[in-house]
Amino acid sequence: MADRLRVGFMGLGYMGQPMVTRLLDAGHAVTVHNRNRDKCAPFAARGATVAASPRELAAGSDVVVSMLATSAAVEATVAGDDGVLAGARPGLTLIDMGSTAPQVSTALAATCATRGVAMLDAPVAGTVRAATDGTLVVMVGGDESAYAAQAGLLSTFGKHVFYLGPSGSGARMKLVVNILLSLTSQALAESLVFGAAQGLDRQKMLDVLVTTPSSSGVVQRKGQAMVNRDFKPAAPLRLLYKDLGQALSVAQELEIPLPATATAHALYATGMARGLAEQDFAAIHAVMEHLAGLDTRKNP
Amino acid sequence: MADRLRVGFMGLGYMGQPMVTRLLDAGHAVTVHNRNRDKCAPFAARGATVAASPRELAAGSDVVVSMLATSAAVEATVAGDDGVLAGARPGLTLIDMGSTAPQVSTALAATCATRGVAMLDAPVAGTVRAATDGTLVVMVGGDESAYAAQAGLLSTFGKHVFYLGPSGSGARMKLVVNILLSLTSQALAESLVFGAAQGLDRQKMLDVLVTTPSSSGVVQRKGQAMVNRDFKPAAPLRLLYKDLGQALSVAQELEIPLPATATAHALYATGMARGLAEQDFAAIHAVMEHLAGLDTRKNP
Amino acid sequence: MADRLRVGFMGLGYMGQPMVTRLLDAGHAVTVHNRNRDKCAPFAARGATVAASPRELAAGSDVVVSMLATSAAVEATVAGDDGVLAGARPGLTLIDMGSTAPQVSTALAATCATRGVAMLDAPVAGTVRAATDGTLVVMVGGDESAYAAQAGLLSTFGKHVFYLGPSGSGARMKLVVNILLSLTSQALAESLVFGAAQGLDRQKMLDVLVTTPSSSGVVQRKGQAMVNRDFKPAAPLRLLYKDLGQALSVAQELEIPLPATATAHALYATGMARGLAEQDFAAIHAVMEHLAGLDTRKNP
Amino acid sequence: MADRLRVGFMGLGYMGQPMVTRLLDAGHAVTVHNRNRDKCAPFAARGATVAASPRELAAGSDVVVSMLATSAAVEATVAGDDGVLAGARPGLTLIDMGSTAPQVSTALAATCATRGVAMLDAPVAGTVRAATDGTLVVMVGGDESAYAAQAGLLSTFGKHVFYLGPSGSGARMKLVVNILLSLTSQALAESLVFGAAQGLDRQKMLDVLVTTPSSSGVVQRKGQAMVNRDFKPAAPLRLLYKDLGQALSVAQELEIPLPATATAHALYATGMARGLAEQDFAAIHAVMEHLAGLDTRKNP
Repeated sequence: MADRLRVGFMGLGYMGQPMVTRLLDAGHAVTVHNRNRDKCAPFAARGATVAASPRELAAGSDVVVSMLATSAAVEATVAGDDGVLAGARPGLTLIDMGSTAPQVSTALAATCATRGVAMLDAPVAGTVRAATDGTLVVMVGGDESAYAAQAGLLSTFGKHVFYLGPSGSGARMKLVVNILLSLTSQALAESLVFGAAQGLDRQKMLDVLVTTPSSSGVVQRKGQAMVNRDFKPAAPLRLLYKDLGQALSVAQELEIPLPATATAHALYATGMARGLAEQDFAAIHAVMEHLAGLDTRKNP
Repeated sequence: MADRLRVGFMGLGYMGQPMVTRLLDAGHAVTVHNRNRDKCAPFAARGATVAASPRELAAGSDVVVSMLATSAAVEATVAGDDGVLAGARPGLTLIDMGSTAPQVSTALAATCATRGVAMLDAPVAGTVRAATDGTLVVMVGGDESAYAAQAGLLSTFGKHVFYLGPSGSGARMKLVVNILLSLTSQALAESLVFGAAQGLDRQKMLDVLVTTPSSSGVVQRKGQAMVNRDFKPAAPLRLLYKDLGQALSVAQELEIPLPATATAHALYATGMARGLAEQDFAAIHAVMEHLAGLDTRKNP
Repeated sequence: MADRLRVGFMGLGYMGQPMVTRLLDAGHAVTVHNRNRDKCAPFAARGATVAASPRELAAGSDVVVSMLATSAAVEATVAGDDGVLAGARPGLTLIDMGSTAPQVSTALAATCATRGVAMLDAPVAGTVRAATDGTLVVMVGGDESAYAAQAGLLSTFGKHVFYLGPSGSGARMKLVVNILLSLTSQALAESLVFGAAQGLDRQKMLDVLVTTPSSSGVVQRKGQAMVNRDFKPAAPLRLLYKDLGQALSVAQELEIPLPATATAHALYATGMARGLAEQDFAAIHAVMEHLAGLDTRKNP
Repeated sequence: MADRLRVGFMGLGYMGQPMVTRLLDAGHAVTVHNRNRDKCAPFAARGATVAASPRELAAGSDVVVSMLATSAAVEATVAGDDGVLAGARPGLTLIDMGSTAPQVSTALAATCATRGVAMLDAPVAGTVRAATDGTLVVMVGGDESAYAAQAGLLSTFGKHVFYLGPSGSGARMKLVVNILLSLTSQALAESLVFGAAQGLDRQKMLDVLVTTPSSSGVVQRKGQAMVNRDFKPAAPLRLLYKDLGQALSVAQELEIPLPATATAHALYATGMARGLAEQDFAAIHAVMEHLAGLDTRKNP
């Protein structure tokens, strides 16, 4: 159980909301901030303080957690005019749990350090359900003693909390995780479409695949979504497209090839261009069916 | 428990041997044949009859099981001068459990049918251990009543036995399974190399990956092999290279794109060209490290 | 000028017809054969003999030229029951000028040799216009002295006649030529679509590209077809799809990677699956526009 | 012939030097600036003024031309403390002829506009020889009247000067040109390696290719470099790697797939990782030979 801390939380999206609920359940003194203030109301009703700006949030907190959608949003709320650094006392710890680009994360951490603020990058893997249950996977980069001081707080969110190394290491690990996730989904879609084009039954194929050593939670759940053509978003395709793009941009700087990632990225881009951005990323199956003409010609 | 049958078995390789052991353990009357006759001796010692040719094997059996390495070997032992069809009575069932190309499988089944022989294609997924334990995944194509008659026998080999459809369906499903397997391994190798090039620790990365929904038996076992750079072959890289090539050849006839399969195939081909054919297919990690220069330059 | 030879010609398609016209213009004694006999009439009217079968054609000729659409057609007309070898005297030379797969070509040449027939593989590069003008590029494989004896005849068809090496070398070179052709067209389509998606004018882009060192006949003519979206077939997309598939099948045996060829092949396959098989291969531009959503969303 | 102008020139690299020589030959009043001042001396000897900073250069010029190596260098010399904008009078025209990223180019032009400075992006295609002869291809983006006013000056450098559209259009067109160039070179390398792996002679293959409609200056010159394995840099591989990376980064924002560009980029990245960054980009042939094992195993 973590000590009672004054915890600020920015970013009340679909992941942020259950995370704040867990903080309140754990008895922390929580202050929240969100661009759209309406989302703060339910938490205020449970006793959370509402801050008008990141600056104000920081001023009243020992630790600030951010869960924002884009790297640009993180930059603005941390280093902007009315941002966290404008209100932070030396000694504050900032934990960025969104999927921020490693380069941005590292640069911001350096800026924070000049102000006496320790910044950890701590992105997560997992769904809204895992956020609700506190079973996220949390990948942490930054100063190791700053991590050690916050390990208790982080365990509020995740069953598995990993310390990966210096600043940016968590953000880098998140890209590693999402390469595997995106390419596994692409592989699954391509294998199902290949079988269907030969007349094999989609459900029977999935029944076989889940008995093989390649089976995983992704194969089971995304496979069923593909068979059912049910692409109600758990994680929208555009998010994985963004992460694959970030990975390739990091690889550009590293001067290393990622050929399978590049191929998958081009297929996710096809999904973006053909209007599937807001569908679940399992809709990569719809992209493959379209390319194979299975959506327009009679199946053999 | 299957009825006592006179079962002929051809192909005493690393998979065939434990499969014959299971037939003997189950009390069947077993006749074996192998090109290199020395491999028959241990089974003769346990009471199996040894046949000098596939023809002789077929003449003394109700059902013949083949577990051979290549499509060409299957064609020769079935339709060749001294082959199964030369010795078979009408009513014999031939079960081909190797990874034969679908086109070859379908053509041979048609030839068999003209001689009153029912041929099932029934390739398997799984390792030598699964063959020993009788926990293979068996994927069956062919006449449904012929399958029904042999379901008991097939359960000697596999915990999961699936009937997929007409002749060739088992062979096609095997390619579907191996596309997923090969591409998952490629994805894993590429994600680990991407992380290592940024300075992340390989074992820590794997520790994280196995807690995510992408985790699978393949991720766990092949991932550990990659981290340890231990490529002692469970299944050699050349086998998956061959299957990816077969899948792409089928796709050529179907006139459909398999872009991720094509990319992975080019990387397995690089492994072939660079001398890794007989290493375990987890050595695709060595290919990726080589392309990224991680085997020659100092890691960042 | 070639000597007066008794020349047999099989395959009066869109390339074969102007080639026979050139033979007649050059004063050769020409016999023709075609599966659809109607196509022989115009040549009979100009003095050509009409043979009822490849066998009959071979019986009355010193040299037989074939210009057929598929490897299967070549196999049947050469080695089939009523084929060339059934009618050929020892000393006959067979020149296969179609795009036969190298493996088929080499195997047939070996069969021919056992009957005293020299077979040259001599596929061509160039359009119907080049066939009419006698300016094809001819790529010859086979016995060098057999080539030397037919060099005069081959110059009837081609301004550039190249001897490449032993049997199959011509067929192999044809694939080399068509890899460059297909991938250049893909590169051109992709660069134009990339520019158009940013708002650049297609015609202006082409005007620039033709002044750069990358400009070629292909860039000029196929580029204009792409800008005009005029895909009236000079060479249908399915032909290049077939040749890319042949190249990848040869590469499979060689155990070498062809990553860019594999990527282009997947895109030509997308064209096949989406109904563009009979369009000119410049329609690869339509595939790329479709993938980029430029055919359905407003251009930026 | 252009009017006598006071022309400032920044960036005396291998392209900039012959361009300044042409300005002097044309009779313009030239001021030069270079970070390493030694390179200014030969031009001072011919009558050019030497400026100590971009600011000073701008102060004494009607038009400033920049030919710098990176987007970052352009940003610094234009908008930096001692940069062009610090010294420019309203009415100055800045012409950026390096390969600046389109996003950077557009942003800088907007900054320039707030100071009354018209900025044109005008990157070039062509070699040092073309820079010397004044036969570069110049691709211009920006305000059309600003272009019209400088068309005469630009014709000093290029035989072909194209106006493509608003700010950034020249930079975008440069990427279009370099996609075609890079992918053509990749296609050529891959086709030659494919033939060589089958035993075809490299020089003979090139002799054939240059007679086909795919032939171009690139095929002729880079093909000969590949056959001779002479990779003395005309344009180093790292430059095309950088431009392919820029193109893919633009495509990421456009949300469109560039699958062939992505594949080629991964192969150029392999060249970077394997130590070929400073070789001519024709060394992509060395990458392909390495992947095919042709550099270590005996050729068939």
